Amino acid sequence: MNVVGMIVEYNPLHNGHVYHFAEAKRLTKADAVIAVMSGDFLQRGEPAIVDKWARAEMALHLGADLVLELPIAYAAQPAEWFAYGAVALLEATGVATHLCFGSEAGALEALQPFAERLADDGGALKAAVAEELATGASFPAAYAAAAARLLAGSGAAAAARALLEQPNNSLGLHYLIALRRLHSGIAPVTVRRRAAGYNDAAPTDARIASATAVRRLIAGGGLDAAAPYLPPYTAGILAREFAAGRGPVTWENLAAPLFHQLLLASPEQLRACHEMTEGLEYRIKKALPRLEKPTVSELLAKLKTKRYTHTKLQRTLLHALLLHPQGLLAPEALAEGPGYLRVLAFSKRGQELLKQMKQLAKLPIVTRAAELDHPQLTLDIRAAAAYANAMPARRADQLFREYRQPPLRV
Amino acid sequence: MNVVGMIVEYNPLHNGHVYHFAEAKRLTKADAVIAVMSGDFLQRGEPAIVDKWARAEMALHLGADLVLELPIAYAAQPAEWFAYGAVALLEATGVATHLCFGSEAGALEALQPFAERLADDGGALKAAVAEELATGASFPAAYAAAAARLLAGSGAAAAARALLEQPNNSLGLHYLIALRRLHSGIAPVTVRRRAAGYNDAAPTDARIASATAVRRLIAGGGLDAAAPYLPPYTAGILAREFAAGRGPVTWENLAAPLFHQLLLASPEQLRACHEMTEGLEYRIKKALPRLEKPTVSELLAKLKTKRYTHTKLQRTLLHALLLHPQGLLAPEALAEGPGYLRVLAFSKRGQELLKQMKQLAKLPIVTRAAELDHPQLTLDIRAAAAYANAMPARRADQLFREYRQPPLRV
Repeated sequence: MNVVGMIVEYNPLHNGHVYHFAEAKRLTKADAVIAVMSGDFLQRGEPAIVDKWARAEMALHLGADLVLELPIAYAAQPAEWFAYGAVALLEATGVATHLCFGSEAGALEALQPFAERLADDGGALKAAVAEELATGASFPAAYAAAAARLLAGSGAAAAARALLEQPNNSLGLHYLIALRRLHSGIAPVTVRRRAAGYNDAAPTDARIASATAVRRLIAGGGLDAAAPYLPPYTAGILAREFAAGRGPVTWENLAAPLFHQLLLASPEQLRACHEMTEGLEYRIKKALPRLEKPTVSELLAKLKTKRYTHTKLQRTLLHALLLHPQGLLAPEALAEGPGYLRVLAFSKRGQELLKQMKQLAKLPIVTRAAELDHPQLTLDIRAAAAYANAMPARRADQLFREYRQPPLRV
Repeated sequence: MNVVGMIVEYNPLHNGHVYHFAEAKRLTKADAVIAVMSGDFLQRGEPAIVDKWARAEMALHLGADLVLELPIAYAAQPAEWFAYGAVALLEATGVATHLCFGSEAGALEALQPFAERLADDGGALKAAVAEELATGASFPAAYAAAAARLLAGSGAAAAARALLEQPNNSLGLHYLIALRRLHSGIAPVTVRRRAAGYNDAAPTDARIASATAVRRLIAGGGLDAAAPYLPPYTAGILAREFAAGRGPVTWENLAAPLFHQLLLASPEQLRACHEMTEGLEYRIKKALPRLEKPTVSELLAKLKTKRYTHTKLQRTLLHALLLHPQGLLAPEALAEGPGYLRVLAFSKRGQELLKQMKQLAKLPIVTRAAELDHPQLTLDIRAAAAYANAMPARRADQLFREYRQPPLRV
């Protein structure tokens, strides 16, 4: 039985995801699909527009058979650790046979040679990235340049650089590297991203828009404006969640608690947070009194330099908001991989997968948050509570939903 | 020159305060008045309805010549330390000759004998209070009973008990004890509280209502409902502050950051906060998932037992909100007294007082928050920022007002 894994955020699930999903099933002849999905906070350091339960429901409608939560320890991290955590989760299911990801390249042959060279570099890549960063380059640029340097001998340096500066190629490369590092038997497959670039702010096609564009349409003109780019179930679920006051959630909904934390913390306390590196704690403390408005977007704008990407800054603020200590998210800890398989949703076929997984999985399967005591799971529960506390309508039943909510089923 | 000190909260300043002020000046033949005023958070562990600057302005209108801020290290504390901090501040001015406070007793003779007996008890009172607390009594009841026990030999036990169960008598007694402990030459004077009890929820007189009653009237019917009990300048200042979105501030305005803190903190982290004693951290963690609504008032209701007063619980939540560490507010630290005289406002006569104080004061006089680096002042600045962040209209200029705002003047 072919089981394809996909690593997703569905923020929200749109027509581009529908296309990718169909292609993944077609290319891998998959009988079942496992979606590894970020929880309430995403790789770019943002809260999701609606919570993980609503987005897992969208995934079920799409046809996913099993939705696993990528722990926030990996979900809100740079590509390297995001990919490592997600691939390790798939590998730990014991049942995934394929991994399908979108990329600008659209062909594995373009990425695989770089993965071979970069997977076991013995620290040379890391050192090269650090050198590039020291010149003031942003992380993606530094990564691409460092990879190009390491590949210089192969005559593919310029190609590598061009390739890796595209975000989905870069993420795809990290999936490939993670598969190698984990000695995984999962077969990678890539689908060329259609129509909309990851970061495109405006729709570029009559039916396909990036998730970023979809969220902007919703922010500007409500759900109706975004409807052409969404499958009907997404529009329905979003409408229901918004009506219940559970969304949309943006960084600005978290402004009051974030500012509270930043105002109270000393630079030393801020420095104890994950990703608070190279004096960013002082930069934050200096930026606060210079703001015109106490909004997260203005704080981010004031913090921005060539050196720090918007994404890096958002993630740093997220770790400060959630008081993520460095130790738990240090490379040594992350290299041990996720500690559990948290089930958010499953279909009938997913139920069969879960039965198989009871024999084959390499990690405990968690269907209720209270079942397991694990530091990564504690971070997930805390993140969900902080997210619920920032919903437009604060409700007590949402703050502790994690403990009561069984997996969603169809 | 007679200079009378008054220890106040003015939350908000009402007709009862006008009466007390006039009586204090009359009884002490004072040429000038120093008001020692709590900042943005008050003794009962609540945020003030409007910030300290607006309330200092009310004090100037009333006729106060100098308004000093009681550091939050003392302002949000049980009567013993509240009184000690406030009296120590007055003593440190070097110019105060009298201290006038309201009491239910209305005569110093009723309180002074107890102060004599209780001021230098060598720990016997503390031990007796602890014993009474261990029977499950609330703190005020335990204190009154312990004092009665210690005074048993004097034949005044029953009288002591009846006297000290009234909150302003108890506070007054602590002022007298503090004066003795500080070997102060300041002469105490007491004025009988008129018409309204401290805790009266509803007005009991056509012109006089307690501050609690005034705040309830405002919450229920707006400023107009409270106007009969307020001098016109209080009504004017409140109207202006409300219109600017700087008030009214209640605990519910702090619910989002408070819940964020409580949800993220482990019991161990909560226990590190001041006043988080006797397993209260576990009680909070257990209460949170049982709430019907994520409001502070419901959390307080769930936490309430015979043992813990509402005030004790509010203060504990306040210390958790503001991340007040135990060490800084431990008895040994508090016994050293306030570290500075922070000037919030002064009149022409107050300016002369300040000139004298430059020679006579026993502590540095601070007119700008940035002038001094002192851990208690850091707490005051943090408290002001957290308060401003909870105002109905969040504005960047309010978050750091402490650094820019010079003392108010008339």
